[in-house]
Amino acid sequence: MSGPSEADVTILAETFRLLGDPTRLKVLLACLNEPVAVTDIARRIEASPSLVSHHLRLLRAARLVTGERRNKQVFYEAADEHVRHMLADMLAHSEEESEG
Amino acid sequence: MSGPSEADVTILAETFRLLGDPTRLKVLLACLNEPVAVTDIARRIEASPSLVSHHLRLLRAARLVTGERRNKQVFYEAADEHVRHMLADMLAHSEEESEG
Repeated sequence: MSGPSEADVTILAETFRLLGDPTRLKVLLACLNEPVAVTDIARRIEASPSLVSHHLRLLRAARLVTGERRNKQVFYEAADEHVRHMLADMLAHSEEESEG
Repeated sequence: MSGPSEADVTILAETFRLLGDPTRLKVLLACLNEPVAVTDIARRIEASPSLVSHHLRLLRAARLVTGERRNKQVFYEAADEHVRHMLADMLAHSEEESEG
């Protein structure tokens, strides 16, 4: 294996940088397991719907979440299994850390 | 599941922010699969050994890498399977993205 290309590393670093904001990370975590509407995410993480929408736009641009319109609301969820597994692994790592 | 605690989210976001620097990310990727000495990482990613050492200190503080002294050199590698899997998942995600 030659390893990831320079372009892959750049995209990857940008993606991680995006997740370095705690509120944005909470938005992603809130829609990790099922499709959730903006207002529900906002209520769950105690942030304004406009702030949640802003973070969702950035997460969607990085393909970390997808949005699907149902009637008048858009429901967001984690883009794929890679994103879900990645966060599960990092949470497991953090929890070991805080126990250690 | 109640989801991660506020403290877990904070640690997680800090960890992601750390990986948002492309050079630091390359340092971690360079020692993902086997223990590697600072000079070898520096040569592989074309950075100075002192810069590589600086990034390794931060990665070690975040428990993303571990270091083991052998004779006169310290060999670094990814801290655990969670870190390895997390990066493998994110690389797979980025590669889909650049193909998509």
